Amino acid sequence: MNAAFDPAALVRPDLDGLVPYQVHIHHNVIKLDANENPYDFPPSIREEIWRELGNHTFTRYPDPVAGDLVDRLSDYTGVPAGGILAGNGSDELILTLLLTFGTGGRVVITPPTFSMYEVHARIAGARPVNVPRRQNFILDTPGVIAAARHPETRVIFLCSPNNPTGNATPPEEVAEILKNSRALVVVDEAYQEFGGESCVPLLEEYSNLVVLRTFSKAFGLAGLRVGYLLADPAVVQQLLRIKQPFNLNAFSQLAARTVMARREEFGQLINQILQDREELYRELAALPGVEVFPTVANFILFRTPLPAEQVYRELLANGILIRNMHSPGLEQCLRVTVGKKDENRLFLEKLKMILGL
Amino acid sequence: MNAAFDPAALVRPDLDGLVPYQVHIHHNVIKLDANENPYDFPPSIREEIWRELGNHTFTRYPDPVAGDLVDRLSDYTGVPAGGILAGNGSDELILTLLLTFGTGGRVVITPPTFSMYEVHARIAGARPVNVPRRQNFILDTPGVIAAARHPETRVIFLCSPNNPTGNATPPEEVAEILKNSRALVVVDEAYQEFGGESCVPLLEEYSNLVVLRTFSKAFGLAGLRVGYLLADPAVVQQLLRIKQPFNLNAFSQLAARTVMARREEFGQLINQILQDREELYRELAALPGVEVFPTVANFILFRTPLPAEQVYRELLANGILIRNMHSPGLEQCLRVTVGKKDENRLFLEKLKMILGL
Repeated sequence: MNAAFDPAALVRPDLDGLVPYQVHIHHNVIKLDANENPYDFPPSIREEIWRELGNHTFTRYPDPVAGDLVDRLSDYTGVPAGGILAGNGSDELILTLLLTFGTGGRVVITPPTFSMYEVHARIAGARPVNVPRRQNFILDTPGVIAAARHPETRVIFLCSPNNPTGNATPPEEVAEILKNSRALVVVDEAYQEFGGESCVPLLEEYSNLVVLRTFSKAFGLAGLRVGYLLADPAVVQQLLRIKQPFNLNAFSQLAARTVMARREEFGQLINQILQDREELYRELAALPGVEVFPTVANFILFRTPLPAEQVYRELLANGILIRNMHSPGLEQCLRVTVGKKDENRLFLEKLKMILGL
Repeated sequence: MNAAFDPAALVRPDLDGLVPYQVHIHHNVIKLDANENPYDFPPSIREEIWRELGNHTFTRYPDPVAGDLVDRLSDYTGVPAGGILAGNGSDELILTLLLTFGTGGRVVITPPTFSMYEVHARIAGARPVNVPRRQNFILDTPGVIAAARHPETRVIFLCSPNNPTGNATPPEEVAEILKNSRALVVVDEAYQEFGGESCVPLLEEYSNLVVLRTFSKAFGLAGLRVGYLLADPAVVQQLLRIKQPFNLNAFSQLAARTVMARREEFGQLINQILQDREELYRELAALPGVEVFPTVANFILFRTPLPAEQVYRELLANGILIRNMHSPGLEQCLRVTVGKKDENRLFLEKLKMILGL
């Protein structure tokens, strides 16, 4: 027996303090915590996936470059196929980007924002450099440009619409950063289908731009883990050297390309979410003492007079799961995903009860 | 426009020379190149997966720890659930192991072996250290132990049965290495179901052992990318800090746990492969000038009097795809996967023709 072995001592010391991403599974709750599409998957698209499955076998390795899916994505985005890379969720693409370009350098992050940029930067052995957002979570564009000029800066992450704050950065500001940066500028447009202008048109002009997208939000495929990125083909070529050869499984490829072929059928669901977002926003903003932040995504950030942890726990005790975002820069903030009409109504009702309104 | 941007210049210099994993898609060929299970997926298991699918939605994020699948794997392997981690293919687990324990240290590799250990070691910023196999590809156990003693050695990769040579390392030798190493010893048992003794029983005694497994070979799910590892729960806890939160999609979890629940139905297919392997081995070995290496996996390594590239190309021109392994230590070697009876027969027939026999 090898009593001397201590795995904690063998772990890279530069990852001290990194904790597992906490996902507690709660059953029988209204799930408004993960910015998923709340609607049942369109039955006709589901049936088409099942039909395609009928002729499919999974005994062979999947297409390593997801060619059929990439062709559909090219049709959707207008980006040539050579500038598209599909991944096992955009999480995998974030790590691949960082392992290819970030390791040993600086990675600019604009908190408060999606936590995976910093986590993956650390895992990839890059140094995360924070350029905090200004009042109302507006991007500090001059600050980002200043950080971009540091010779060790390799990658800049901008999330737009930004998770968890909900606001977007105008493409003109992103262009300003692109123009003044020799680093790669990654714009995560996970929530783009819910609002905010896309940076995709900037790809024609700026070869240092990468746009990240996902099927997990508007297109209702969170369970299948499909993300993609749009970039200059020369950037994609570099990423292909590093990515896992068979990163995206065959079923997810099949489901995602079917969704792309029939994407117009999601339009109605997305419109419903946008309409319900406005209603939920208005009703939250009307509650005395509740501060609500403007959003162009499918979630809303807000703050109440009570501690966020208390609001989170009491909502959960009432069968409603949202996200407690309390952390530096987001003091006592919570994030709620726009659900179905009756889910939003129940959330508001319980929140009012908790706040004594 | 940002003319100054050159993605190649922005890539980490320590990855120079790394090329994309080459996967050429050949249509209408007999595929004996990727060690997949050649048989159609058992229809009754397929129907059960379809039935389960009927009640399933993919709009929500998957279970981050694949709990139901892990319970089935615990039943299959006898390892407690806390010592099991599922991944997006064992490729992802290799990278996660290296990012957790390897970065900045030395990683021992025993070539000729599976190429991903070295590729991922480099990507993770670890230094690959080669301890070449001895004559007949037998592990240089004293050499591995000597390399394990270097204070910077963090991870040791042993593949058993070894890809692409086909031979296994006896668990007693692995135990010798485990006893003499404070590094993590990873035994990749991707081909274990085809032969060779498993190192799983050693897990009870050695907390520095990790066993890697896959659904891509014996269990016919290469297209769905499911791998898993077995280790001390303390090792799994460290890996959970680093792994992608939602690494394994919900459909692959569902399919793999269904396969595990009905794994005995694969027994007949596996037995058929083993029987056909013996036949293919005998017939190959009987060809004048052909050198064949003993195997306990579902593939056979061999060498002919002609250049491997020529044999590879002429087989492909005749509709048969195998793998050209020509490289240092594997001069003029080729690897053929054991296919169905008629596939093996056609392969032998074409090979004889090419060799002028």
